[in-house]
Amino acid sequence: MKKNEQKKEEKVLTEKKSTKKKDSSRKEPKKKKVSKSKTGPLRIIPLGGLCEIGKNMTCFEYGNDMIIVDVGMAFPEENMPGVDAVIPDFSYVIENKSKLRGIFLTHGHEDHIGSLPYFLSELKCPIYGGKLTVELVRHKLADKGVTMSGIGFNACKNGDLVKAGTGFWVEFIRVNHSIADSYALAIRTPAGLIIHSGDFKVDYTPINGKTINLQRFGELGKEGVLLFMCESTNVEIPGVSPSEMHVGESFQRIFQETRGRIIVATFSSHVHRMQQIFTAAEKYGRHVCLSGRSMVNTFNVANSLGYISMKPDTLIDTSELDNYDPDEIVILTTGSQAEPMSALSRIAFASHRSIEIQAGDTVIISAHPIPGNEKPIYRVINELFRRGAHVIYESLADVHVSGHAYRNELKLLHSLIKPKFFIPVHGEYRMLYKHKELAKSLGTSEKNIFIMNNGDVLEVRPDKARINGNVPAAAVLIDGSSTSDIGNKIFSDRRMLGEDGCIAIAITLDRKGDLYCPPQVNSLGFIFEDEKEEMHRACGSKAMSLLSSDRSKQTDLETFAYSRQFREAIKSFLVEKTKKRPGILITVTRLV
Amino acid sequence: MKKNEQKKEEKVLTEKKSTKKKDSSRKEPKKKKVSKSKTGPLRIIPLGGLCEIGKNMTCFEYGNDMIIVDVGMAFPEENMPGVDAVIPDFSYVIENKSKLRGIFLTHGHEDHIGSLPYFLSELKCPIYGGKLTVELVRHKLADKGVTMSGIGFNACKNGDLVKAGTGFWVEFIRVNHSIADSYALAIRTPAGLIIHSGDFKVDYTPINGKTINLQRFGELGKEGVLLFMCESTNVEIPGVSPSEMHVGESFQRIFQETRGRIIVATFSSHVHRMQQIFTAAEKYGRHVCLSGRSMVNTFNVANSLGYISMKPDTLIDTSELDNYDPDEIVILTTGSQAEPMSALSRIAFASHRSIEIQAGDTVIISAHPIPGNEKPIYRVINELFRRGAHVIYESLADVHVSGHAYRNELKLLHSLIKPKFFIPVHGEYRMLYKHKELAKSLGTSEKNIFIMNNGDVLEVRPDKARINGNVPAAAVLIDGSSTSDIGNKIFSDRRMLGEDGCIAIAITLDRKGDLYCPPQVNSLGFIFEDEKEEMHRACGSKAMSLLSSDRSKQTDLETFAYSRQFREAIKSFLVEKTKKRPGILITVTRLV
Repeated sequence: MKKNEQKKEEKVLTEKKSTKKKDSSRKEPKKKKVSKSKTGPLRIIPLGGLCEIGKNMTCFEYGNDMIIVDVGMAFPEENMPGVDAVIPDFSYVIENKSKLRGIFLTHGHEDHIGSLPYFLSELKCPIYGGKLTVELVRHKLADKGVTMSGIGFNACKNGDLVKAGTGFWVEFIRVNHSIADSYALAIRTPAGLIIHSGDFKVDYTPINGKTINLQRFGELGKEGVLLFMCESTNVEIPGVSPSEMHVGESFQRIFQETRGRIIVATFSSHVHRMQQIFTAAEKYGRHVCLSGRSMVNTFNVANSLGYISMKPDTLIDTSELDNYDPDEIVILTTGSQAEPMSALSRIAFASHRSIEIQAGDTVIISAHPIPGNEKPIYRVINELFRRGAHVIYESLADVHVSGHAYRNELKLLHSLIKPKFFIPVHGEYRMLYKHKELAKSLGTSEKNIFIMNNGDVLEVRPDKARINGNVPAAAVLIDGSSTSDIGNKIFSDRRMLGEDGCIAIAITLDRKGDLYCPPQVNSLGFIFEDEKEEMHRACGSKAMSLLSSDRSKQTDLETFAYSRQFREAIKSFLVEKTKKRPGILITVTRLV
Repeated sequence: MKKNEQKKEEKVLTEKKSTKKKDSSRKEPKKKKVSKSKTGPLRIIPLGGLCEIGKNMTCFEYGNDMIIVDVGMAFPEENMPGVDAVIPDFSYVIENKSKLRGIFLTHGHEDHIGSLPYFLSELKCPIYGGKLTVELVRHKLADKGVTMSGIGFNACKNGDLVKAGTGFWVEFIRVNHSIADSYALAIRTPAGLIIHSGDFKVDYTPINGKTINLQRFGELGKEGVLLFMCESTNVEIPGVSPSEMHVGESFQRIFQETRGRIIVATFSSHVHRMQQIFTAAEKYGRHVCLSGRSMVNTFNVANSLGYISMKPDTLIDTSELDNYDPDEIVILTTGSQAEPMSALSRIAFASHRSIEIQAGDTVIISAHPIPGNEKPIYRVINELFRRGAHVIYESLADVHVSGHAYRNELKLLHSLIKPKFFIPVHGEYRMLYKHKELAKSLGTSEKNIFIMNNGDVLEVRPDKARINGNVPAAAVLIDGSSTSDIGNKIFSDRRMLGEDGCIAIAITLDRKGDLYCPPQVNSLGFIFEDEKEEMHRACGSKAMSLLSSDRSKQTDLETFAYSRQFREAIKSFLVEKTKKRPGILITVTRLV
């Protein structure tokens, strides 16, 4: 985990890495005629993250140059059963790959970097981001077996300025967020200055002492910002978000009062939260044991970068737990969202290899339930209580704060930046709408605010901006080893199967095309075991009578067996008998 | 809808209704020997509602008498795919039906009355509850086609005392809740006085002016309460719940400020909320149109009982909407939980028969998302905004208050009642645990507090109580027309099918038992359309090669085709090719 030491930070990074790729791209000016005029518009094309939470990705295009901000993934919605992940459609970038000068990452969360393994499998280009972000990406790519040659990893820090092609200069501006090394980006283009907030909050007392660089936002605002793109996650919450320090105070209080083991579950990427747990543990004489693969991985990356401050003997291994008194132990674990295979879920349901709940344990869930996860989380909490643990969770204690700006923090950034044009980003439609209203209330002209859809092309000139056309930007679904952007049929089938199961009917026809023997029936997930055999028999008889009836002879039997008419008749029969509507799978074998 | 007028209230109700049933039961003292001693224990047996939210049902048994409090249903969990409803196991009651003297209903919510159609299809007995509750039950039974003869519907009100058998006197005590006619029950037994809170809150300014009868709780507490059973829904929320009046003030403010149509979505059972909307509508010159079947039904019941106060011309029909200006219209609709077929969902997604969102509409979601429903609700809200409506929802406005007591209200009731024994009910484990801690902090002895599981039998005597044995109380799942309490296999199958689809393989063997022709393959929900045919062919080839191999000859081919070994080989092949694990349905046809 010391790979990073091979790499030194640079004050000003130019695209000297991967220049081969860029140069070659410059040599072949592609089929499509592109404007080279310095006075042409800047084109901003969000490929993800608008009218949704997740898969943030935005292209900025000027003349022959394109840069991308973030390449995130999304978790599948309930209406995409079986899907593993959702990624943006890269086809527009691939078609214009000769223009691509680099990817700029605001921070290392999955919804901002999660699609990189897919993207970089198709296309190589330099990557720029905070130290932690870049290291997390490197590990992610190694994990997924993506070839790294031709990529170019560039760690940037507050104030770093990166030249990308002739069109773009990108400056990293420090912000606060729920992962270390988070940045907003100031993007200088021939059309004007753009600021992209990334994900941020305003924390006046952050754990590492590094507050969001408000002065720089003010300075740029004074200079004149053409367009501001700002995240909208917490636009519905009034006031200001509490400081991460607030959580630390709660930890200190709980650690001071608690006897017995302490188990803390939190997001594995939350390095500051991790630090606060180490700090509280050391103060109250406890050792920390890490549980869960992603927790161990992030710790190793963060620690190797010097982002964790702790005594050498604070960290202990799971195998050493028995050597310490319960009062001397903190277990830091994944599973704060009750992910089924996570360490905390396995601990709660007694299927963890080495950690078992003991009466007197205190479990702290240091996270907020992501919408949709409430029920699984409460199931884990109920189970922990039942096994004798005391559980502290957000409803009852200040053990989590959000990493996203509330309304007043958003107002602060708007007021420092005072942009001519504004695009609310990173949110579902209602959040973008509320953010538009917020910007209006601060004086931005309504006609200068754009609620965009993924794929919309916004053309921006120094004096005007308008949406002009769009590019493909439907969600691409990763389903096992397949990908697709048209899954409606397969998902409606899966929903039906998931509710009512399926039934298979095998029909055998003789060489004349007549029914050779009674149809064979089998089913799965359709009916309770004790009624199954009887139902198979009844369904077989029904199929036989349908196939033997005069009606079926109007056409040949094979055609009829595959027909909608036959299928509907079987379905009606099953609905009447069981009130269920299973999927029906028909196979016909023709004897020769 | 004037059926109720046939029935008059009675001051003291005895079991004169359905006495035939009761008398006959007394004549046959059943196989089981039951204690008739006056000094025997009271047995309290919760059949639902403990360590869960939903299907509240509790049996109280003394000597030869049994009464039941509530017969609710629950909504299926995510791990019960395809299940329509979850009901308690009635088998203990059916075994002891000769003892049953009546069902007492605390209020008319589904989790307290929803299983009555199932229960009363098997067993008739008198029902006692508030006027609205009893009418809702009557409509529900009519709707489900349950025979009503032999049931006996008895409308009760605050102070009514019902004698049930020789063992029980039950008194109705008014409480506040999110449905009209909600009651706590004081149950006098030879062992002592029991109080069951039902669902309640303390509202000092309720809509109908009738505050929870705190004096009576105090009086009974002074007299001496042996055991208190109290709901635990909001035990995690500090302080006191706001009054329903608070919502009315918000409505008044919004109605005053709003131009254009107002659409309000709320729970159809919330008669007080309905009243507040009528009141605000009349004050600001609007007519009310009802949308959604359950909204119309509840309105009709409540209105026929005189529970809605309004001018005769306030109510208008959907067909009349065009006759009024937008400023004169309120549409009161179901769908506050974004139920897929509800009126609001259909309005949002433009599939409603007669109501379409117009730019300038204001939609008020007057409800709190039930855990697990957040995402669908936000999808509806996003869609409404997108169609030009302004949406007011709980995160941003005071348009809903809870119907359940917060911590301080719970403390109030405990302090008035001061019971010897306490059972926290109506909640998941962590809530029961928190409620136990609350009771302890108020002075109830820890050994006198019982966190019970469904089916546990608590024996209560004047001086002691203990859990002694249990009765069957697993959840009974309604799956189409089948019911079962052992669904693990079918649900794991459905989960698999819902994620990865299924594949059917039809194998034909000749009369010697050799493979007659290549296996036929079909699939559903397994793989995207463009890869389907190729995959069917590959899978057919794989099956053929497995069936043709020497290995298969070690046993007969039909046995092998159905074997775990064959299935696993097919599964490995599919996982390798697609990274998906579909259900596999095999049929074998043997030619003769």
